[in-house]
Amino acid sequence: MSDFGTPGRSDSKGFCLVLSAPSGTGKTTVGELLTAEDSTIVRSVSMTTRSMRPNEQDGVDYRFVSADEFKAKIRQGAFLEWAEVYDGVLYGTPRDTVERVIRSGDVALLVIDVQGGRAVKAIFPEAVLVFLIPPSMDCLSRRLKQRGLETDDQIHRRLIKARTEMKYLPAYDYGVENDDGKQQLTVDAIRGIITAERRRISRWEPQ
Amino acid sequence: MSDFGTPGRSDSKGFCLVLSAPSGTGKTTVGELLTAEDSTIVRSVSMTTRSMRPNEQDGVDYRFVSADEFKAKIRQGAFLEWAEVYDGVLYGTPRDTVERVIRSGDVALLVIDVQGGRAVKAIFPEAVLVFLIPPSMDCLSRRLKQRGLETDDQIHRRLIKARTEMKYLPAYDYGVENDDGKQQLTVDAIRGIITAERRRISRWEPQ
Repeated sequence: MSDFGTPGRSDSKGFCLVLSAPSGTGKTTVGELLTAEDSTIVRSVSMTTRSMRPNEQDGVDYRFVSADEFKAKIRQGAFLEWAEVYDGVLYGTPRDTVERVIRSGDVALLVIDVQGGRAVKAIFPEAVLVFLIPPSMDCLSRRLKQRGLETDDQIHRRLIKARTEMKYLPAYDYGVENDDGKQQLTVDAIRGIITAERRRISRWEPQ
Repeated sequence: MSDFGTPGRSDSKGFCLVLSAPSGTGKTTVGELLTAEDSTIVRSVSMTTRSMRPNEQDGVDYRFVSADEFKAKIRQGAFLEWAEVYDGVLYGTPRDTVERVIRSGDVALLVIDVQGGRAVKAIFPEAVLVFLIPPSMDCLSRRLKQRGLETDDQIHRRLIKARTEMKYLPAYDYGVENDDGKQQLTVDAIRGIITAERRRISRWEPQ
């Protein structure tokens, strides 16, 4: 330890990292790569009322709950942020798990949409907001079609929504391009952001 | 290029990175490692009136000039910051070379003292200020003695000054510990800070 009268160090202080992007920009994959490489980055598992996809696991990808259960949680104030997305499906970030991760000194990773990011920043002003930027609309459209999970009409609506979502960019702290086939560069850039933010002096505890 | 109506990207926008530390914390070595690893980090060569040390080279380590020449430059407003340190020796950062590096899109690295950092931030509010923190006073004292460049009395004065210099920490953006034998960790942390700051949205050009 330094005996220079420095304020409390931040290296071991947890914070909230919000990762947002228009749908199809690959935020889920980037989030998985981040947590796989570093055990001090802990992804917060969101709650949702949508049906589970074949490759998903309850409690790992999402906590899948009924609409009634979800609405009860809203009434209890149990969400840091929640949103109703396509076709009335609800998504939310449970506040208690995020707070537990931050208290333990780790980085709580929230992979959420842009409206959610703004809500989190309002509750945790020290949260770090990262926006993943798709290289182009064409590329985003191609990705969504390749994923093969939605109809052309659903994809068209997503693309219109993506343009709107880009308007939230100025509310974010960092913008990271996520190019096709270069996801490791994206992950490295976000790891750099975490390295920096852990050392931000404004984050140090006053003594 | 993204066609999402994103503002001008910052990846290629230069900025000023100030690296400060109490004397003996190893800021010169850390600066050398940073520029050796990455050609987009360009160290600004300071001007000084002190005498050249045996291992130094004019125009590389410093531009060694006479006191008269230095004072003429002050009158011309040619310095971004300058200071009179031990025994009337003058050090200064020429403004033109720093501005040239920033304009070219690179990172202008300024290895300067804490008063200088504050002066640079006043002129370039977008400058990034990094403070290298020595692990302890004992360690700093040991390093200065090992360097063998100064008398015990000079070292004693440096140590007193170091304590005062630590008071400037809150004016800095980031604090990075520089432990003995772990300089690569220090360099990696600063590289993370550069990676992050290149992607800071507030740095993007408005369109």
